[in-house]
Amino acid sequence: MYGLILAGGSGSRLWPLSRELYPKQLLNIQNTESLLQATFERIAECMPASNIISMTGVKHFANVKYQLSSLAKETVVLSEPISKNTAPAIALASKYIMDKFNTDPVILVVPSDHMINNTEKFAATVKAGEKIAEQGYIVTFGIKPSYPETGYGYINVTQNKIENGYKVNKFVEKPNEKLAEEYIADGNYYWNSGIFMFKASVLLEEASKHSPEIFSKLANFDFSNSDEIPYIEYDKMPSISIDYAIMEKSDKIALVKLESDWNDLGSWKSIYDVSPKDENGNVKVGHVLDEGSKNSMMYSSSKLVASIGLEDTVIVETEDAILACRADKTQDVKKIFETLKKQNDNTHLVHKTVYRPWGYYTVLAQGNGFLTKMIQVNTGQKLSVQSHNFRSEHWVVLEGTAKVILEGKELILSPGHSVDIPLKAIHSLQNPYQETLKIIEVQKGDPLIEEDIIRYEDMYGRV
Amino acid sequence: MYGLILAGGSGSRLWPLSRELYPKQLLNIQNTESLLQATFERIAECMPASNIISMTGVKHFANVKYQLSSLAKETVVLSEPISKNTAPAIALASKYIMDKFNTDPVILVVPSDHMINNTEKFAATVKAGEKIAEQGYIVTFGIKPSYPETGYGYINVTQNKIENGYKVNKFVEKPNEKLAEEYIADGNYYWNSGIFMFKASVLLEEASKHSPEIFSKLANFDFSNSDEIPYIEYDKMPSISIDYAIMEKSDKIALVKLESDWNDLGSWKSIYDVSPKDENGNVKVGHVLDEGSKNSMMYSSSKLVASIGLEDTVIVETEDAILACRADKTQDVKKIFETLKKQNDNTHLVHKTVYRPWGYYTVLAQGNGFLTKMIQVNTGQKLSVQSHNFRSEHWVVLEGTAKVILEGKELILSPGHSVDIPLKAIHSLQNPYQETLKIIEVQKGDPLIEEDIIRYEDMYGRV
Repeated sequence: MYGLILAGGSGSRLWPLSRELYPKQLLNIQNTESLLQATFERIAECMPASNIISMTGVKHFANVKYQLSSLAKETVVLSEPISKNTAPAIALASKYIMDKFNTDPVILVVPSDHMINNTEKFAATVKAGEKIAEQGYIVTFGIKPSYPETGYGYINVTQNKIENGYKVNKFVEKPNEKLAEEYIADGNYYWNSGIFMFKASVLLEEASKHSPEIFSKLANFDFSNSDEIPYIEYDKMPSISIDYAIMEKSDKIALVKLESDWNDLGSWKSIYDVSPKDENGNVKVGHVLDEGSKNSMMYSSSKLVASIGLEDTVIVETEDAILACRADKTQDVKKIFETLKKQNDNTHLVHKTVYRPWGYYTVLAQGNGFLTKMIQVNTGQKLSVQSHNFRSEHWVVLEGTAKVILEGKELILSPGHSVDIPLKAIHSLQNPYQETLKIIEVQKGDPLIEEDIIRYEDMYGRV
Repeated sequence: MYGLILAGGSGSRLWPLSRELYPKQLLNIQNTESLLQATFERIAECMPASNIISMTGVKHFANVKYQLSSLAKETVVLSEPISKNTAPAIALASKYIMDKFNTDPVILVVPSDHMINNTEKFAATVKAGEKIAEQGYIVTFGIKPSYPETGYGYINVTQNKIENGYKVNKFVEKPNEKLAEEYIADGNYYWNSGIFMFKASVLLEEASKHSPEIFSKLANFDFSNSDEIPYIEYDKMPSISIDYAIMEKSDKIALVKLESDWNDLGSWKSIYDVSPKDENGNVKVGHVLDEGSKNSMMYSSSKLVASIGLEDTVIVETEDAILACRADKTQDVKKIFETLKKQNDNTHLVHKTVYRPWGYYTVLAQGNGFLTKMIQVNTGQKLSVQSHNFRSEHWVVLEGTAKVILEGKELILSPGHSVDIPLKAIHSLQNPYQETLKIIEVQKGDPLIEEDIIRYEDMYGRV
C-alpha cells in the first residue's frame, strides 16, 4: 500500500495561531508533534514509511519537508507550483506513484490536519478499506454523525454491503440544521472525512470517464526521473475538488465506517470541543489566569491572558495578534483573515516568529532605517551563503557558538561577541555545534526587506 | 490660593494598562496628556502654577516629576517615603505650605486620576468653594448622582445654605443598590468626589480636635529649608483617610455642587462609559478589527485585536498581558492584580516598557545568560554614570547619535555602530543631540537584574 498526505491549506481557520505561510497541519495544537507529523506516523502504521509521499504548495514546502524529515529522512514531498484543489493533486500523485515505483498499488489519501485519536481502529478501517479498494472501488471513510453538524458534507449509503463497507448512493452538500437532523434520523448518512483509498489505475480510469479535462493532461507529466511538477503544464489543469470531479459522478464508490474519534479541527470551536476542560468547562492553554469564566477557551501562546467572567468565549493570544470571539462565531475567523489579506496586513501571512529550514527568526523591533531580529540556528544547520545590496548587519551572539564566514574568512564567536557584516559582503551564519545558536541581528539600511538577499549556496536548495 | 495634587495610587484598577509602578494618573487614556498633567493644567486655571504642589510615593516620584516638569519646570513634588493614606499626606502638605511660604492660604486638594471635562465650570465651583473655605469651613465637592452607583461614598447635606453651598449632615459609606436608590430619591445626597478646599489653619485645627494622633506628630516636620519627608517620623503617623480622620467627625464641613462631567475612571467599565462609541456601542482604541460585536470595548496598545460577536465584553491588550473581562465584572480586575502580586508575577508591577526620567526601555528578549533591551534616550537626557558587577553590555545604535563615556573616554556613535561595555567598566550613555536616541543593548552575565548597578553621578538625584 502507498500513502498520499495532502498538506496544503490556507491557514485561515485557526488564525491567529495559523497563518497563510504556517497553516494548521504545521501546528502543535495539543501535542509535542504537529498534526502533519501525527498524520505521517498514523499512516506509517499501515505501510512502510518509504511508501508515503506528501503533496504541498511551494509556500509550505520547506516547512513540510523539515517537519517530515525528522520522522523519515528521505521522505518524498511534492511541491505544487500553484494551488489546484484536490482532484489534480490526487490524480498527479497517483501517476507519480505508478511512474516512479512501476506498480499499481492501493493508495490511501489523507488530509494532514485532522485529529484521529485511535490509531489501532484507524489501521483496522484502512485494512477493511484495502479489501474493497482491491475490488476496484474508490473507498471513502465515513464518520457516523454524533450531532446535526451543518459544516460538513454528508455521504448517503445504500444497504448493499461490499465486504465491511457499503455502496455509496450519493454525496450531499453541507445541509441546514433541519436537513442534518433528518440525515441523522435516517441512519444511512455519514460525515465525509476526506479520507480515500483506491487502486491507482482505478482512480485514473474513473478520471478518464468523469474528468477527462484532468485525465487528458496527465500524459504531459513524467515522474520516472523527476520529482518536479512543471508550472506551465500544471497550470493547464482545472482547479476542482476530487468530490466534484470524480466521487459524485462515479458509481464505483464505497464507504467504510471510521470508528475512531475524528475531528477536522476546522475552527476554534472544534479545538475547544476536543480539548480537556476544567470543572467550569474552560480550556486553558499556556499562561492563563481566570476569575469565574465558564465554557470558554483561553489560549495563550506567549503572554499572560487574564480572563474574568467570560461565557462561551474564545480568546487566542499570539505574539502579534489577539482573537476574542464568541464560541458560536468561530467560523467567522475566516472573515477577519480575508480582511487582513485585503488590507495587506502581514498578520494573516506570517507569525512574528518565522520558521525556516534552519531554525527561526523573530522581529523584535523595527524603526526608521533599522530592524532587529532574534535568530535561532538549530544544531547542524547553516543559513545560505548570501549578500545584501541595501543593508548592513551587525550580529551579537546570545547563546551557543556561531561559525561565521565573512568574505571567505572564518570567525568563531561565543556569547557576547559581535561582528559587522558590511553592505554587499558575502557571508554565512552556521551552527555546526551541539548547542542551539541564538544571535541578535541589527539590520541597517533602506529598504529593509526579506527579498534583499542574493544566495550563492544553500543546503536547502533555495539558490 | 494653593493647590495640592494627590498622585499616589496602586495601579490595580486599570490593569493591565496601569501597573503598580505606573498607575492610572500617569496614563494617557483618552488624550495626548496624562490624567496627572490634565489635573495640573485644570487647577492651574484657578491659581498660579507655582502655587501647586504634588505629593506622591517614592515609587512614582521620578515619573510624576518628569510628567509635571514638561508643564512647569520647577514644580514641587513631595515624595512620601511610605504610603500613609490621605490624612497624613494632606496634613503634611498643609504644614509644608505654611512653613515654606509663610502664609495661611485656601488649599484646593485634588486627586490626580479623575476625569473632569468642563474646566470653566470646575473653576467656577472652585471660586464658590473658596468663599466658603474663607469662612472657616472644610469644603467638599459633591456630584449630583445620575444613577444609583454602589461603588462611591455619598454625602448627605442639610438645607442650610452657606453662600452657594450646603452644610454637610453626614458622610455615608458605599451603599447597596436599594439604599443608593433611596439616596437619589431623597435628593440631598451627593457622590463624594474626593476634592476638598480649606484654609490651611482650619484643617490643622480640625486635625488637632479630631485626629490628635496625626496633629501631635506634625511638629516633628519642618519644611522651611527642606522638601524632604523623613521616613522615621512619617512612619509614626497612622495610615488613615481624610474622610475617616476629619471629614466624618468635624461639624465645619460644607458641600459645593460640581457641575462638570466627572468620572473617577475607577474601572474599565468607567473608561467604557466615558469613551466615544460607534453605532453598535463599541469603543475601539488602537489596531482593532471587529465583526459584529456590541456594547464592547476593544483596547489595543500594541498588537492587532480581532473581535467577533462579543457582547458587553472588555478586551485590553498590552505588550505583556491581555485582559478579557465581562463588562459588569471589571471591578474584579483588582483580584487578578492581587493574585499576580502574590505570585511575584512582574506583570502587576511594571510594563514591558519601563519609563525612566531619561526615556524608556523595553525588554525584547531574555534567555540563558542574556537579556536584550531596546533603550530610548530622550533629547538632552543622560543615564547615570554607572558600572555593573555581574554583566557586560554591548550597545548598537539604531537611531540618533549616542555620546558614550567609557572609562573616561568619549565615543560618538551613529546608527549601525556598536561598543562593548566590559564588566565593571564605568560608563554613561548620553543624548545631547536634537534627535531621539535608540539603541539595542545586549546584556551578558549572571544574575541579570536591574539592581546590579552602581551609580556614580546622576542628573535625576538617584545616586
